[in-house]
Amino acid sequence: MVIELSEELDVPSPLKQLNLEPYDRVRIIKGHMIYEGLLMPKTEILGDEYVMIKMDNGYNIGFRLSEVRVELIAKKHAVKFEDRRPLELKVDLPKVVVLGTGGTIASKVEYKTGAVYPSLSAEDLYEAIPELSEIASISTRTLFNILSEDMRPEYWSVIAKAIAEEVVKGDVSGVVVAHGTDTMGYTAAALSFALQRLPVPVVLVGAQRSSDRPSSDAALNMLGAVLVAARAPFAEVAVVMHESTSDESLVVLRGTKVRKCHTSRRDAFKPVNDTPLARVVRGRELVVLAKGLRPRSEDRKDLKVYANFDARAALIKVYPGIPPEAIEWPIHVGYRGVVIEGTGLGHAPSYAFSSIKKFMDHGIVVAMTSQCIWGRVNMNVYRTGVELLRMGVIPCEDMHPETALVKMMWCLANARDEEEVKRLMMTNIAGEINPRTEYRGVLGE
Amino acid sequence: MVIELSEELDVPSPLKQLNLEPYDRVRIIKGHMIYEGLLMPKTEILGDEYVMIKMDNGYNIGFRLSEVRVELIAKKHAVKFEDRRPLELKVDLPKVVVLGTGGTIASKVEYKTGAVYPSLSAEDLYEAIPELSEIASISTRTLFNILSEDMRPEYWSVIAKAIAEEVVKGDVSGVVVAHGTDTMGYTAAALSFALQRLPVPVVLVGAQRSSDRPSSDAALNMLGAVLVAARAPFAEVAVVMHESTSDESLVVLRGTKVRKCHTSRRDAFKPVNDTPLARVVRGRELVVLAKGLRPRSEDRKDLKVYANFDARAALIKVYPGIPPEAIEWPIHVGYRGVVIEGTGLGHAPSYAFSSIKKFMDHGIVVAMTSQCIWGRVNMNVYRTGVELLRMGVIPCEDMHPETALVKMMWCLANARDEEEVKRLMMTNIAGEINPRTEYRGVLGE
Repeated sequence: MVIELSEELDVPSPLKQLNLEPYDRVRIIKGHMIYEGLLMPKTEILGDEYVMIKMDNGYNIGFRLSEVRVELIAKKHAVKFEDRRPLELKVDLPKVVVLGTGGTIASKVEYKTGAVYPSLSAEDLYEAIPELSEIASISTRTLFNILSEDMRPEYWSVIAKAIAEEVVKGDVSGVVVAHGTDTMGYTAAALSFALQRLPVPVVLVGAQRSSDRPSSDAALNMLGAVLVAARAPFAEVAVVMHESTSDESLVVLRGTKVRKCHTSRRDAFKPVNDTPLARVVRGRELVVLAKGLRPRSEDRKDLKVYANFDARAALIKVYPGIPPEAIEWPIHVGYRGVVIEGTGLGHAPSYAFSSIKKFMDHGIVVAMTSQCIWGRVNMNVYRTGVELLRMGVIPCEDMHPETALVKMMWCLANARDEEEVKRLMMTNIAGEINPRTEYRGVLGE
Repeated sequence: MVIELSEELDVPSPLKQLNLEPYDRVRIIKGHMIYEGLLMPKTEILGDEYVMIKMDNGYNIGFRLSEVRVELIAKKHAVKFEDRRPLELKVDLPKVVVLGTGGTIASKVEYKTGAVYPSLSAEDLYEAIPELSEIASISTRTLFNILSEDMRPEYWSVIAKAIAEEVVKGDVSGVVVAHGTDTMGYTAAALSFALQRLPVPVVLVGAQRSSDRPSSDAALNMLGAVLVAARAPFAEVAVVMHESTSDESLVVLRGTKVRKCHTSRRDAFKPVNDTPLARVVRGRELVVLAKGLRPRSEDRKDLKVYANFDARAALIKVYPGIPPEAIEWPIHVGYRGVVIEGTGLGHAPSYAFSSIKKFMDHGIVVAMTSQCIWGRVNMNVYRTGVELLRMGVIPCEDMHPETALVKMMWCLANARDEEEVKRLMMTNIAGEINPRTEYRGVLGE
């Protein structure tokens, strides 16, 4: 497995000849228009033909180099660590480990230059969020630095094992995982299945707006995540993000029941068929909302780690006119499981049934979820559902499709045989199946 | 094209020998348990080995015939149409045509027997919903009778053409399309693109609970749909369904901006990145909420019908670990368009880029939406997005994935060439693209 630990930063060749470096402040002149911003590093796709700058409003803009003139305004400043005031931490603060995986939350913006670079040192965190020094004694560890859209099931294993190491070896009160928001819901589900009988909270946290933007949620989210990891009375895998568009409160959402439901809003993460576990009010008070949460435990050795995932599972969303090829490809690549995002209560077009039967003939486990996202699959109501059940399709109850996919990958890696995969898929393992539909409805109304 | 117009109803052979017929009331004896209900017709999959009954609570339950004894309680009753009181309609009521396509809303339950059968006569509607006789002079026409999970793009064309016929030939004030809820959002989008310069409203309506259940929403939804078709001052394609769990109000939602967001709740249909067009209060009052709606017009000939869809377009949802085979299959079956359900602001894993490049090499148009569903795609913010834009991927703005797929199928059938498909995808045609993100947020909060 290859994990991109950091990127080599470079600028397009024509700009290198001008002695420009990434994050220098530059002026781009195109015809009568002048743009100012920070010179962004070149990428494989942009290559030497394009130049991109990050403007002061936080947005990037790209230009064809042949059409513009680029001028230096100011060289980037080196970060002067010696400028920092020494930290005076309280003694006996709870210990929290922050694991970095990449994403906006793990990017530090140097305010003097505006440059964004991966950084997750405890010093950086205390400097950016002084309140942390009242809450926890923080150590950090960067596992890798990827955009979360590049997440893979094998990286979930790396994260799970790293958390287990920290939990078992030491006296940490909780673990925070800094993660890009794009796939944070998938990873939260993965860790929920991989880490069982947890003695301390594991908190995933991200940021929807980078810390160079006035509306950034990075600092408050991190503060809340560390607070939950340090002090929460429950030992659950959870996501901490903004509850609304205001900075008034953060929500703590169950790892198997959380989903990114907005591209850009700070309150993008919503519970699906679940209520929030807790709320962090004004970055200080933790209010527990849910009942029956797993309590903290002193017995670190009790932790069970099932960190393997078998990525040979597919997520297939059906739609009007879906052709057999869109469904049957997992057979040809030797996949072992398929999660269908059906319509309504868990239906697929009857013209897709022969494809689904082929899965059965190839020993592929098929599970049904709903593209409605909210609500519970009930395949007993209409003929299509009943026929799918008869074929052996597993109803995923009130699991949303992404959690069902992650669970399928986990079951395939950890069950002894196909029958155990099916049994586990229908068994509540990490809060992913609520025993009954409470008709809490869309977004917990 | 073959459309299943109605099903031949039959019972499993062993029961036929007992002179049992579909919808007879029967008793099933299994060991010490006795179940009562209506004998359901046999299906291809259930075949002669199984028997299914509909119990009085509205749910179906199936048994292996070899394990039970089946006894007749009462023969089904014939519906006596002569029992009905003659209708006394007001004169000069607006004319509304109700087109039947199938689904729960178009099923009539005969209360004497509990039998469910496809029915959509004006007499049935007036009998079930007496208030209708104050609102409209209704005629009905059954186009086909399918479960909506079996909907196909070619059926959208049939519906669009039938609506156009009714609108152009006559003096109808509006058209109602009775539709199963599973794929009603897709069809609503399809009709929005197919029927342009509409002179009257076109209202899709469904029911989440069949009319044999106490909580059925069938009657109120149909009442609201006919009211909107008859009286709304706007000529838009819209969906009418419950606004909340109460019967207090119905919402009227734009056809390109509506999505089924709950498997079973009556208020499952929500606007995505949009506000409701109107509200129907207590089944009587119509309150218009949105501005800039297309007004009714007297000029029926102004209607433009573009009823064709090219089904060679795929919807692909990306997820951690998605393999090339899950992405590239459209190339091998000669597809012309792909809508990606990316993560976050419109991203795909960088390990999927080579597959996406292959689409470009094969002249396949690729468009990007977000699996977040709410919010707007913005591919300028992060590197992954910028690189996808550079490859030629089209950002679908604030369209949700299902509407983008329907639009792609429509563009492929109606544009002259690939460039026009791309241009149309980025042009607002039927309210599917809001010119700017209003950060109305998830579910219009």
